Amino acid sequence: MGSETGKAKRNIIVGQSGGPTAVINSSLAGVYKTARERGFDTIYGMLHGIQGFLDEKYVDLSTQIHTDMDIELLKRTPSAFLGSCRYKLQEIHEDPEIYERIFRILDNLEIEAFIYIGGNDSMDTIKKLSDYAIVKGHKQKFLGVPKTIDNDLALTDHTPGFGSAAKYIAASTKEIIRDALGLAYNKQNITILEIMGRNAGWLTGATALAKTEECEGPDLIYLPEITFDIDHFLENVKELQKQKESIIIAVSEGIKLDDGRYVCELSGGADYVDAFGHKQLQGTASYLASFLGAEIGCKTRSIEYSTLQRSASHMASRVDIDEAFMVGGAAVKAADEGDTGKMVVIDRVSDDPYMSAAGIYDVHRIANNERLVPREWVNAEGNYITDEFINYIEPLIQGDYQPFMVNGLPQHLVLKK
Amino acid sequence: MGSETGKAKRNIIVGQSGGPTAVINSSLAGVYKTARERGFDTIYGMLHGIQGFLDEKYVDLSTQIHTDMDIELLKRTPSAFLGSCRYKLQEIHEDPEIYERIFRILDNLEIEAFIYIGGNDSMDTIKKLSDYAIVKGHKQKFLGVPKTIDNDLALTDHTPGFGSAAKYIAASTKEIIRDALGLAYNKQNITILEIMGRNAGWLTGATALAKTEECEGPDLIYLPEITFDIDHFLENVKELQKQKESIIIAVSEGIKLDDGRYVCELSGGADYVDAFGHKQLQGTASYLASFLGAEIGCKTRSIEYSTLQRSASHMASRVDIDEAFMVGGAAVKAADEGDTGKMVVIDRVSDDPYMSAAGIYDVHRIANNERLVPREWVNAEGNYITDEFINYIEPLIQGDYQPFMVNGLPQHLVLKK
Repeated sequence: MGSETGKAKRNIIVGQSGGPTAVINSSLAGVYKTARERGFDTIYGMLHGIQGFLDEKYVDLSTQIHTDMDIELLKRTPSAFLGSCRYKLQEIHEDPEIYERIFRILDNLEIEAFIYIGGNDSMDTIKKLSDYAIVKGHKQKFLGVPKTIDNDLALTDHTPGFGSAAKYIAASTKEIIRDALGLAYNKQNITILEIMGRNAGWLTGATALAKTEECEGPDLIYLPEITFDIDHFLENVKELQKQKESIIIAVSEGIKLDDGRYVCELSGGADYVDAFGHKQLQGTASYLASFLGAEIGCKTRSIEYSTLQRSASHMASRVDIDEAFMVGGAAVKAADEGDTGKMVVIDRVSDDPYMSAAGIYDVHRIANNERLVPREWVNAEGNYITDEFINYIEPLIQGDYQPFMVNGLPQHLVLKK
Repeated sequence: MGSETGKAKRNIIVGQSGGPTAVINSSLAGVYKTARERGFDTIYGMLHGIQGFLDEKYVDLSTQIHTDMDIELLKRTPSAFLGSCRYKLQEIHEDPEIYERIFRILDNLEIEAFIYIGGNDSMDTIKKLSDYAIVKGHKQKFLGVPKTIDNDLALTDHTPGFGSAAKYIAASTKEIIRDALGLAYNKQNITILEIMGRNAGWLTGATALAKTEECEGPDLIYLPEITFDIDHFLENVKELQKQKESIIIAVSEGIKLDDGRYVCELSGGADYVDAFGHKQLQGTASYLASFLGAEIGCKTRSIEYSTLQRSASHMASRVDIDEAFMVGGAAVKAADEGDTGKMVVIDRVSDDPYMSAAGIYDVHRIANNERLVPREWVNAEGNYITDEFINYIEPLIQGDYQPFMVNGLPQHLVLKK
């Protein structure tokens, strides 16, 4: 290694940021393995992203990942192995000192490449740091690796983390539909599923994957991109009840009325306000279940898939885990070849058979706006998705990595202190 | 077969009742396979239990289950394949006509044995029908097969369905703990998990299985058997916050204050009343999350595991599926050997290695009371479970049946109409 011959070290550092996913650690594994293979000396992991980095919290990953088996276990571990943060870096002119501090730490650690796995804010961090490095003549390379279950990043065909969340949602929806059918006999029941995605309906649409040869799938799907009309909704449900006893409805947590209010604001009940003055709103599905119960008088229930949408590694998609690994590795390769200020993306090379490849985009081209479901991928009535949506999403949930089961439960790789 | 030689037919009928589980269909598979092997002619399945049976809704199961592969698929299918019901049979003297109708249908179908898979109400049905048959001189045999995720049936060491629900809860808890840890950096977070079980805390206690070599498990566990003291609870949480940033609390949906009110009744918000006048209470975890948010001022969130606790076949326990199959088969064997008015139970033969066997109990001995977690299996403070509880439950979540994945999702066997 470089150190032994007195040469300058080639070190690299990687961090994770934003809401975790089931596969963000597979990207970390991809970074680690590729950095090893390309001969980097020390591979650092920043703890809790740039926020921990500023406190000089980092680990030498070789103290954490010892074997190929550890890499496989890391791929099967949900949430951010290194810890995550939600931290928006100031503009350079607003806080030059923080930039000086970051580069001082980078120089001390002899870092050549800085890889950041995260969402829109993380790509913004990559942009600012690479700009600063160029302007100030620092040699470090800055590369971004996308992740988000919400699939709302531009330029990439889809985001790592989305496929696994979609697979968990679709599998759970199939199981819940079976449960509801088993109980429906001479009496109606309605189940309302609440799915993550405040503004983008990609995950809510994924419930339609539950429609398979032995399952009818959900009956109605409401995305946040479409204004929610509660009267129309009630009509739809009443119409369906003439045909079937058990009705399944998927709604995004972020559906809104035409006056801009979230549906979950309609409850009118006791709104708890936390210490920061934030309203703790009741759930959308829970409100709609109460509404239908009162209007129609049948048995209703609401189910929030909640945090498990982003943490259920035990039902992760093999395609997703492999792609997350691929984009992690591609970022290291790009940095090693001299790229900076870029984000790795997933390009869809072919639909059938499905094939994808890593692409590289200038991080300046990534506008900070969310990519929403196109209107033409929702039906005319605005209460279901189209086949184009299904064709797009279906390849992303294929295949599995079997969890490593120890004493009956999935084992994870966790940070040794 | 009997029919060809003009002999009386030996037919059998099986039904499913009560809240579904992940393995109630494995008991059905056990009934079917054993009935085949023991030379029964037609194996009928009643649709939606005794309620559908009274409407003469049944199927010949040989039209549904064709191959060993179908049996394996049935074992991996959640909820009641035949449909379930919630139906309490009247006492014989209250409604003799309904008994006459049941036996008329049984005679018409040349039924020799009636197997009912369900909870307390179903065992009550078995008791009444076997009593009636004996009194009136009918020859049919009536056998009960237990099921419930709640594990609150007496006489059996545990109930089929419990182990799989416990495994799903423990696996999900591990994933959620990872998620919470990943986000905790210089700021506290509290996660409250709400677990099924109104009166019995078996499933809430199962969250402690998440405590493994790489996971601390939940910090506090509150069962419905122990009166909930909200001031004490707040003190416990504040004490924990001095030691750690991320706190995980598991609560039963049924925890109550010492004045008898459910914690979920404390919200004081808008209580929706459905068409039947039933209060739709807000969740326990959601209330406590708001309470802690207001009292402590840190980030809190609540997660309800909801219906997936009983329907997540994709995370079922192999021990549970096998035992569910075993008790189904044992009921057929018992009926075939002349038993009636009995329930099959699971006897624990050995702890290490874990071994179990099917036992037979007189259904009259089953008092209709719930089996609760013994006080000595909860710690003195009433906020965690003991090692005895863990030793009892751990064998029940071992092993897996891999789902049969088709197009990226678990496949199920469903009724062909």
